[in-house]
Amino acid sequence: MVPTPDALTAAMRRALQLAALGPDRDVNPQVGCVILAADGTVVAEGWHGGSGSPHAEVVALAGLPVPLRTPEAARQLTAVVTLEPCNHTGRTGPCAIALIEAGIGAVYFAVSDSDPVAGGGADRLRAAGIPTEGGLLRAEVERFLAPWLTYRALGRPRVTLKWASSLDGRTAAADGTSQWITGPQARADVHLRRSRADAILVGTGTALADNPSLTARAADGTLLERQPIPVVVGDTVIPEEAALYAHPTPPLFYPGHDLAATLTALGSRGIRSVFVEGGPRVASALVRHGLVDEVLVYLAPVLLGGPRMALDSIGVTTIGGARRFTPVHTHTLGEDILIVAQPTAPIPNTEDN
Amino acid sequence: MVPTPDALTAAMRRALQLAALGPDRDVNPQVGCVILAADGTVVAEGWHGGSGSPHAEVVALAGLPVPLRTPEAARQLTAVVTLEPCNHTGRTGPCAIALIEAGIGAVYFAVSDSDPVAGGGADRLRAAGIPTEGGLLRAEVERFLAPWLTYRALGRPRVTLKWASSLDGRTAAADGTSQWITGPQARADVHLRRSRADAILVGTGTALADNPSLTARAADGTLLERQPIPVVVGDTVIPEEAALYAHPTPPLFYPGHDLAATLTALGSRGIRSVFVEGGPRVASALVRHGLVDEVLVYLAPVLLGGPRMALDSIGVTTIGGARRFTPVHTHTLGEDILIVAQPTAPIPNTEDN
Repeated sequence: MVPTPDALTAAMRRALQLAALGPDRDVNPQVGCVILAADGTVVAEGWHGGSGSPHAEVVALAGLPVPLRTPEAARQLTAVVTLEPCNHTGRTGPCAIALIEAGIGAVYFAVSDSDPVAGGGADRLRAAGIPTEGGLLRAEVERFLAPWLTYRALGRPRVTLKWASSLDGRTAAADGTSQWITGPQARADVHLRRSRADAILVGTGTALADNPSLTARAADGTLLERQPIPVVVGDTVIPEEAALYAHPTPPLFYPGHDLAATLTALGSRGIRSVFVEGGPRVASALVRHGLVDEVLVYLAPVLLGGPRMALDSIGVTTIGGARRFTPVHTHTLGEDILIVAQPTAPIPNTEDN
Repeated sequence: MVPTPDALTAAMRRALQLAALGPDRDVNPQVGCVILAADGTVVAEGWHGGSGSPHAEVVALAGLPVPLRTPEAARQLTAVVTLEPCNHTGRTGPCAIALIEAGIGAVYFAVSDSDPVAGGGADRLRAAGIPTEGGLLRAEVERFLAPWLTYRALGRPRVTLKWASSLDGRTAAADGTSQWITGPQARADVHLRRSRADAILVGTGTALADNPSLTARAADGTLLERQPIPVVVGDTVIPEEAALYAHPTPPLFYPGHDLAATLTALGSRGIRSVFVEGGPRVASALVRHGLVDEVLVYLAPVLLGGPRMALDSIGVTTIGGARRFTPVHTHTLGEDILIVAQPTAPIPNTEDN
């Protein structure tokens, strides 16, 4: 006997909440685990506390009430985990083995781990005779794990490219002024999303022209609690009086224009998500090289005309070569509109069970 | 005793339906009139059949049942009219006088007529002791009468500027190809709106480069019933094999680049609405000179980069000079998004009572 589908779904939602309690700037993913009795009661919970600490499943098993810590008693229990239990011995032993040894009766997880080293936990559980099923609340958990999944699949952080433009696609007036194309609600949304990103990236041209602070701020100018790491790419030297040097985190500089290499380098520092705010040279290069996972376009109901665009050339010469995206959200923010779109040819994520 | 507010509102909605029965390409506005008994019952209806035929109020009065055709009986009646009753003697006598002579007890209308010649009907009714009130369902009726109101206020047709672009504001790929940036639902919407316009206008550059037919078509390519009159502005000669010569209505050509004069000329031909489909030179000139009443931007979830934009320069040099619009609708059309916006500094319409 296993818990009802409703109880399993509720447990996965709870596991997702638990996962979010773990550190979000870690080389390891955030993972949560809930263990259910046959009647759907939660008997133990756990989440991963970050690299070097035990995995969520191990934490949950350790929290089982003593009477349930025998394989016979555990046979009635179901483990619900956000990510496929790992199958490799890193700084901790494989979670699949821990679940098998505990005698857990069934395992549900949301998202598969396609990694050749860590993956395969589901197969190992099944080989041990434990019914194991993936895909429960997969879409929700994939959204939550998107930066880590991107890194797992592509070896680079998830890249969000953002700009604000007029209805005719201009990001600034002819003289370069752009404060403010969009209204306060759109700007607040940008700062919130900055604060969720691990890093914020601009080219040296934008750093010089706009002198941005690259911080995530509240409407009154105070810093939000979480700040993205400022990253500047390009060869021009940024003078020491630039606002970005006042950022709470020292900026990272990547000379040259090899954005793929820069992203890989950021990934190896544990950065899993990058919020790109221009300028056109950086943005166009990212699009041209297929390095954009999400585009955020904040559209203000103004017309500007003139030469200032979010992108210059992205290597598209004819309409058949257009870079196609799929709109995933359209939000109204005051008088502005935010369009969130993702590449239509999806970034290959982990496979499903 | 007058009908309840609900009965008056229902009567105005009916009057608006009646108005739409009149010809929509006429120098006169479409007007509908409903006459209510004190208990809210409809006792007569009328609409204006176009220039030279009697006005809606006169038609409705002529349709009154015989027992109500005395001033004593009519004192219990309320006339509900979409437009302020006229006060001038043209090819028909003033409607205000007709209502006074019939002995109508009260008059409600939606939209005022600010014209120095035809306007003033409400004051005349009030001077005759008839309670008269404007503004009932004003917004709905103003939308319906927008082309005529624009013409009344500005002496030119209502101008809708439309383009389809990528998220980065490009209307075509670098080589000029643009079929199709947007999907079938967006294209169907464009054709429907074309068919509602009195005229469709392009510059000679667009006529040469895209060889458009300037017709309103169904998805299968057949012509919709109502077709806009094709208008081409500019000095370049369009070769006689161009598709626009196959339009069911012979195209009008306006040489030169004085768009204000062109619009005035179109207005004097009875054209009350113009749908502008480019190119950038014409579109930019219209925006620059404040000749745009509505912008339709069809945004496709693609990125193109490159040099092809809906507008070039519109005379805005710094952000404070941005042409501000107010979004009035955002529609999702398949994967595309339509943004409908109107100038924030409104075109002066008729005053309210």
